[in-house]
Amino acid sequence: QEFFKKIADAAWFQTSITVVILLAGVLVGIETYPALVERFEHPIHIGDQIILWIFVAEIVVKMLAEGKKPWRYFLDPWNVFDFVIVAACFLPFEGNAVTVLRLLRLLRVLKLVKALPKLQILVGALLKSIPSMVYVSLLLFMLFYVYAVAAVFLFGTNDPLHFENLEIAMLSLFRVVTLEDWTDVMYINMYGCDRYGYSADSVVQCVTPKAQPLLGALFFVSFVLTGTMIILNLFIGVIMSGMDE
Amino acid sequence: QEFFKKIADAAWFQTSITVVILLAGVLVGIETYPALVERFEHPIHIGDQIILWIFVAEIVVKMLAEGKKPWRYFLDPWNVFDFVIVAACFLPFEGNAVTVLRLLRLLRVLKLVKALPKLQILVGALLKSIPSMVYVSLLLFMLFYVYAVAAVFLFGTNDPLHFENLEIAMLSLFRVVTLEDWTDVMYINMYGCDRYGYSADSVVQCVTPKAQPLLGALFFVSFVLTGTMIILNLFIGVIMSGMDE
Amino acid sequence: QEFFKKIADAAWFQTSITVVILLAGVLVGIETYPALVERFEHPIHIGDQIILWIFVAEIVVKMLAEGKKPWRYFLDPWNVFDFVIVAACFLPFEGNAVTVLRLLRLLRVLKLVKALPKLQILVGALLKSIPSMVYVSLLLFMLFYVYAVAAVFLFGTNDPLHFENLEIAMLSLFRVVTLEDWTDVMYINMYGCDRYGYSADSVVQCVTPKAQPLLGALFFVSFVLTGTMIILNLFIGVIMSGMDE
Amino acid sequence: QEFFKKIADAAWFQTSITVVILLAGVLVGIETYPALVERFEHPIHIGDQIILWIFVAEIVVKMLAEGKKPWRYFLDPWNVFDFVIVAACFLPFEGNAVTVLRLLRLLRVLKLVKALPKLQILVGALLKSIPSMVYVSLLLFMLFYVYAVAAVFLFGTNDPLHFENLEIAMLSLFRVVTLEDWTDVMYINMYGCDRYGYSADSVVQCVTPKAQPLLGALFFVSFVLTGTMIILNLFIGVIMSGMDE
Ligand code: NA
Ligand code: NA
Repeated sequence: QEFFKKIADAAWFQTSITVVILLAGVLVGIETYPALVERFEHPIHIGDQIILWIFVAEIVVKMLAEGKKPWRYFLDPWNVFDFVIVAACFLPFEGNAVTVLRLLRLLRVLKLVKALPKLQILVGALLKSIPSMVYVSLLLFMLFYVYAVAAVFLFGTNDPLHFENLEIAMLSLFRVVTLEDWTDVMYINMYGCDRYGYSADSVVQCVTPKAQPLLGALFFVSFVLTGTMIILNLFIGVIMSGMDE
Repeated sequence: QEFFKKIADAAWFQTSITVVILLAGVLVGIETYPALVERFEHPIHIGDQIILWIFVAEIVVKMLAEGKKPWRYFLDPWNVFDFVIVAACFLPFEGNAVTVLRLLRLLRVLKLVKALPKLQILVGALLKSIPSMVYVSLLLFMLFYVYAVAAVFLFGTNDPLHFENLEIAMLSLFRVVTLEDWTDVMYINMYGCDRYGYSADSVVQCVTPKAQPLLGALFFVSFVLTGTMIILNLFIGVIMSGMDE
Repeated sequence: QEFFKKIADAAWFQTSITVVILLAGVLVGIETYPALVERFEHPIHIGDQIILWIFVAEIVVKMLAEGKKPWRYFLDPWNVFDFVIVAACFLPFEGNAVTVLRLLRLLRVLKLVKALPKLQILVGALLKSIPSMVYVSLLLFMLFYVYAVAAVFLFGTNDPLHFENLEIAMLSLFRVVTLEDWTDVMYINMYGCDRYGYSADSVVQCVTPKAQPLLGALFFVSFVLTGTMIILNLFIGVIMSGMDE
Repeated sequence: QEFFKKIADAAWFQTSITVVILLAGVLVGIETYPALVERFEHPIHIGDQIILWIFVAEIVVKMLAEGKKPWRYFLDPWNVFDFVIVAACFLPFEGNAVTVLRLLRLLRVLKLVKALPKLQILVGALLKSIPSMVYVSLLLFMLFYVYAVAAVFLFGTNDPLHFENLEIAMLSLFRVVTLEDWTDVMYINMYGCDRYGYSADSVVQCVTPKAQPLLGALFFVSFVLTGTMIILNLFIGVIMSGMDE
């Protein structure tokens, strides 16, 4: 135990793991270039296996460092995070699930957050600020829910592309609150889908146009005003909490 | 009175009401899916009636809890808010006003703000900050009014889609201040509607094109600068006041 | 003097002037509707003249209130502001300069800032914060100037619509810094105007296409990063100074 | 030495250099107008040479002011900055590298930051805040890297215009985080490139369309939420550090 504890706490051990994580990140980045994957398929595969077993070795060393109570390794949530990321690569997948395997390997880059203490503190502070923001989030969700349901009732038939059902309406309202081309959505429902926005090659066709000039303007302007204010409130709250730490 | 007061103050009573509000929210959400409405028309209608009468019962209990002075129930503005939302569902509507009835039922979700004390405090803080912002709002309204009237005089004939009259000009300026495709509006008035923005299938046709390159640029750039600054000022003010509470 | 001083300081005098300013605002708003102007041409004109002479009377009363030193009226910059706005309406214009006369009348709405003391303080605070921001503004202007000159040299021939000369380049960079469709400008210069953005009916035609993928991306991304940061810095600075007051 | 030290520290010397920098700025601005360049080619060239030799003289004076240790001139990083900008104009270029030479001359405008002490302090404060932000930047880079690699794997074949390889994916994600038409990118990958966004005259053609409605929405909404929050965090951090100075 003493031996493994000494290794696990050594500076060179932490530094080596950090370097291996960076290598893993570079390797998965290389895999985004098909030409390189084809040419260096074998070395990439071997590099990948070596990195995987180094991460397994890291977990084993840290567990052995706990002596007769290896389960104490899991008491630190960051260790659980490490363990899950490494374990996921051993899950059995069908032969052609290349994308899933690559994404799992990509997750190893996140181990960097654990490896660099300052980054760990930063992320911890951001995560800790979430509970204090639960009521602003709830208020924001209520706003989205009420406006989304109303939008389906009011604009669903005129503008199915943006308000066909509740989940698509939620997505469209999220778009509106980021101020991304929100007037296009508003004009479609102010002037009707036959006179604005929809064309013959749209994803969804305009079937039952219905112009609601006043209602459309009031709906979207009021949503933009309240939505952006609550979101701004939420963001500033999270950052303030994070800075206090 | 004692009996009703005990009920009204009981934790289980508040919790039950909160659960019923959540159920009412889920129910109105289900109504956005036409397939589900058709299939479960009867159970949805019954559920709706039950929820309505539970809310009526809540109001009656709270009034009776006041003993011989039931009108004291209305001294709390949140109770008035609750009462209006429930009472609205009893208003007589013609048979085909389905959308209006659904929207009224949707408003019940807002009862959640009253039911959760922390949410009530949060919304109260945001509302309380409004009076302190009345002069910034007035300044913003003046800016909008002056620019909107000027826009109708200067750009009304060239760009009727955005500046035909005062209310449409206000809406277009609100769009500009959210930075939503504001350069399209500017270019139309810099280059004239015959050379930019208007096409044969526009909602409004380009009749009297008039290019004003220098005036257009100065008008919109100065409005974006002053408008965004006052709006930012307003938002930060509201949030700061809200956080002090 | 005593008599006029009493009037000038009286509460009813200030309130009346405020009401007249609001009426002047409503009147100029009515003028944006051609139908109303045609129908009520005469009453509007008379109302306008009455308002103008009330404002002249206000200035005279305030000057007389200074006794034997009427020029002391001009020691208050807000009085100069008032005087210029009223005097402008007496400037001789050719018969058809209707728009200019209407815009001059519109400026009277700004007298409201002087009439409401709280609004005067607010605007004063915003104006006072400007000198403290002079160096951030200078830095921002330098950034715009350096990038605009570079943009004309690098992208002027490929993208004349956005970078033909220094003033148009400045305007396009202001657009980029507000994040308004900035990727369109970038893609035109990354892929060349023959492959992106320009069409046969563009305001300016694509004559000498030139694709600069790496340079275009670096130029606009670096400008967005530095520009938005300095602008954010500037805005927050102005607001902070304004709030201290 | 005493003589040169007196000159280098004199107020008129600093002021003259500042004026020459401004003249250099105006001159390079004039060069953006082809008509002016053609007409005044000779005076512009001479003015340019004079300015260059004044800057050389400035460096020589400041070096001589250090007496027997002229290398101490380079101990101030701002002097190194000055020296590099002037020296760059003496680099040998082929005859037709007009644009490069013009850009080098443009850099002289940046000497203004050194010439105005207040501007020097401001820029110094902004630069000093960067080290304190290194971990937030690292977190932001990780977020971009992980999402960019994932985007190439998931959306690379469907949307080569935005996610063909790692560097283009990074650029597209930067665009998404500035909220610039981010829904267009999302809809292309939700509905497939055959049904949204790509047309016959696109820069890149749609070859292998693949619709991923749920994955696309989750990917971009989660990225917008985390990305904007970390960026906001970063900006506010830089500004806060800068203001403390
Ligand atoms: Na935008
Ligand atoms: Na946009």
